Amino acid sequence: MSYLERVQSCAVYHPDGYLPFLVDGEQVGQVRADFAVELERFDDVFRVSKGKIELADNLKSAESRTDAMAQVLAQLRKEDRVPGWRDELYPATTSFGTPSLFDMERAAVPLFGVRGYGVHINGIVTDGDTMSMWIGRRSMSKPTGPGKLDQMVAGGQPAGMSLRDNMVKECAEEAGVPGDLAAKAISVGVVSYITERDEGLRHDILYNFDLRLPGDFKPMNTDGEVSDFYFWPIEQVAKTIRDTDGFKFNSALVIIDFLVRHGLIDADDPDYTEIVSGLRL
Amino acid sequence: MSYLERVQSCAVYHPDGYLPFLVDGEQVGQVRADFAVELERFDDVFRVSKGKIELADNLKSAESRTDAMAQVLAQLRKEDRVPGWRDELYPATTSFGTPSLFDMERAAVPLFGVRGYGVHINGIVTDGDTMSMWIGRRSMSKPTGPGKLDQMVAGGQPAGMSLRDNMVKECAEEAGVPGDLAAKAISVGVVSYITERDEGLRHDILYNFDLRLPGDFKPMNTDGEVSDFYFWPIEQVAKTIRDTDGFKFNSALVIIDFLVRHGLIDADDPDYTEIVSGLRL
Repeated sequence: MSYLERVQSCAVYHPDGYLPFLVDGEQVGQVRADFAVELERFDDVFRVSKGKIELADNLKSAESRTDAMAQVLAQLRKEDRVPGWRDELYPATTSFGTPSLFDMERAAVPLFGVRGYGVHINGIVTDGDTMSMWIGRRSMSKPTGPGKLDQMVAGGQPAGMSLRDNMVKECAEEAGVPGDLAAKAISVGVVSYITERDEGLRHDILYNFDLRLPGDFKPMNTDGEVSDFYFWPIEQVAKTIRDTDGFKFNSALVIIDFLVRHGLIDADDPDYTEIVSGLRL
Repeated sequence: MSYLERVQSCAVYHPDGYLPFLVDGEQVGQVRADFAVELERFDDVFRVSKGKIELADNLKSAESRTDAMAQVLAQLRKEDRVPGWRDELYPATTSFGTPSLFDMERAAVPLFGVRGYGVHINGIVTDGDTMSMWIGRRSMSKPTGPGKLDQMVAGGQPAGMSLRDNMVKECAEEAGVPGDLAAKAISVGVVSYITERDEGLRHDILYNFDLRLPGDFKPMNTDGEVSDFYFWPIEQVAKTIRDTDGFKFNSALVIIDFLVRHGLIDADDPDYTEIVSGLRL
């Protein structure tokens, strides 16, 4: 697979198959038309009409919406419609940093096409002209991408926490990075995508950080979410992205963005312009 | 002005005011509706109809189109409708790297909303934790942005040359950078924009390079296009972007992208997501 094909594989989206999901007149997500039909039975929570699905008007407060969604999702969970249940509430917003319109179980976020946010940290070591990167392998118990390769550290963005504080927290939990070392990470931009996956529609923005590590640093997982760490020359990372499906789909985008920013995919690559524009949808 | 306002000032575009400009059924640009009316008199070259403007069907070859456009533009130049005439032919393409559908005088490219391409090179010096950047001041004789601040090196992309070769050539001409030093520059992505300017609609992709320079390097202009060079701490560059109109509009975007990639605009900046998404339209 080429880098461009890898990027394009994260842009599988058929907008005609979805209805906008509105709360109080604002779009907070999108729902597949066949799933919207399934939701019609919850007629005290959803109003499904031609062309859109809305939360019921009488659900005015974030609390009442959160409670109503929780009841719907508990029922759907019983019917095995929400695989990978996490018991983790996720804020549904119209854009990053705006107040939560309601909170919902994280595993159901893609079913409603609600936008997700995460932090991904590239852990790198440079030595003269050579560069190496720490790669994590996701634990087999992870609900998404079990056993897949990933950044050294990656995590969802909870409400009410700065990106930087979350980055430092995830660095400690996932890789045992001391706080004063994690604090040296720099933010380097975002990748974003909208793509259909088994779990539903993933419509996410990932905030990326580069963290230069000392040569003698060894990551150590503390929360059971990473089964192994590998220390690879960047060329091996690049080859693995191109030639294998080893990386989790969105972690591959983070690496490709890294390769672009660090001159490891050259501007004269015939796919360059499309690769770069495909990294932020 | 904030970084976000600076980015937004490069996204002034009212699509309803434009007609698509088609060649052989493919869109190669867009023309303001009032300018399309002006072009109706050249009825052997243009077919203006409701909703689009097309090159005449009988202009089948690139040569015949180039000749026809040259005659039209020569007449418009006589009427002072093409300021900043350069005597430099520019390829009109549907996307970067595809064959030229015709060539046209570069100064008229924005009048036809044809996409432009350029290379911009950030010349930087790092010393421990401090970073400085070489900034050029555009000569007063430049047809666009005379006297404005700019990257150390920036230039349009001619047909039939690789981006890297053009980058090395521009480094030599604009700043006297030896070829072996310029060759160390790395490609780091693109910025792109579509925005209305005095000269017309600028719809460009700029290919960006970072070039780390030795501390004793001094740029020297050889082609008369740069009147001065300044060596500024990166914080002064950032402040100048925010607080003044000193930089050429698109060179400011290249710097803002640099600040994002190097962690000098933090992910927790409330405008961060909009800044990053605004850098590539």
